[in-house]
Amino acid sequence: MADHYKGITLWFTGLSQSGKTTTAQLVGQKLRERGVDRLENLDGDLMRMGLSKGLGFSKEDRDENIRRFYLVSQLLTRNDVVTIVAAISPYREARDTARAVIGDFAEIYVKAPLQVCADRDTKGLYAKAMSGELKEFTGVSDPYEEPLNPELVLDTENATPEDNANRVLAWMEEHGYLQPVASAVADSVTA
Amino acid sequence: MADHYKGITLWFTGLSQSGKTTTAQLVGQKLRERGVDRLENLDGDLMRMGLSKGLGFSKEDRDENIRRFYLVSQLLTRNDVVTIVAAISPYREARDTARAVIGDFAEIYVKAPLQVCADRDTKGLYAKAMSGELKEFTGVSDPYEEPLNPELVLDTENATPEDNANRVLAWMEEHGYLQPVASAVADSVTA
Repeated sequence: MADHYKGITLWFTGLSQSGKTTTAQLVGQKLRERGVDRLENLDGDLMRMGLSKGLGFSKEDRDENIRRFYLVSQLLTRNDVVTIVAAISPYREARDTARAVIGDFAEIYVKAPLQVCADRDTKGLYAKAMSGELKEFTGVSDPYEEPLNPELVLDTENATPEDNANRVLAWMEEHGYLQPVASAVADSVTA
Repeated sequence: MADHYKGITLWFTGLSQSGKTTTAQLVGQKLRERGVDRLENLDGDLMRMGLSKGLGFSKEDRDENIRRFYLVSQLLTRNDVVTIVAAISPYREARDTARAVIGDFAEIYVKAPLQVCADRDTKGLYAKAMSGELKEFTGVSDPYEEPLNPELVLDTENATPEDNANRVLAWMEEHGYLQPVASAVADSVTA
């Protein structure tokens, strides 16, 4: 690689409160510390205030939301930006399309049992969904289709965010998206 | 600059058939020849099949279209991508917002008299607009607010696309977005 890293979309999928945003932010922070200066974090909540403003939570609107995510991720990734997506993205077909369109892509399943996610939920959304007050809530009143062949599964019930973020960076190193620290140092010494 | 260029949004505005796409594509081609490898061309027609799918031509929809343009351009530009936008973008306020949001920005007014644009129009859209068959057509039945202080005005009636594209690259060199050829060569000789 011309730089010590290359563009990829790291696509974090999982239930609400599974730990997507926490893990994604930590990955972003660690990548910045490693000198990755072309980096964008597209968070689900932020997208819904920006490019996906006005969309709801029907299957159709969720698919359109994910379509906008992958169109932007495609533009960024092919211009050598490390693009972090954190979005529930409950439908397998939409994630598979994102993978096909983007090419340089890792599906990262942020996994925690539904009850653990519900217990973490300080906003009480799970409680409202379980009582029927809140409709179209993923995992309760709306489907979540688990990834079949994700590049990584991160267990946020038993592992720390630190460990999980390190696993993402290790995966990037193993697959040629990030130069390992030792060889990056060696390069700069021999340059 | 770390590279021999840096991220900016080159925003081409003007009437339908004024020559925005032609000029923008030639600028893109010349930049590629100059080794600019992070480059994205966001064309109005392509955006309407992508991120702006479903939007119409009311003032509200045009503003939303331009909002999506500048949100994407912002993400690309801050990651050091040269981002070329070719969009009628008839409203001054929307373009000024784009400038404010993006920061590294050049407004390029692609200028030709209405009649010249109409004469170039092989699809007969101007004729339909003038007969009243086509509503909300910029310059005929919908306003076009000319830029007040654009970085560049390109005359596509009297100058060639080649000349106009060269003016854009010269502007980029003068304003530190592209290293002039002579000094780029000097750098590589002394490196």
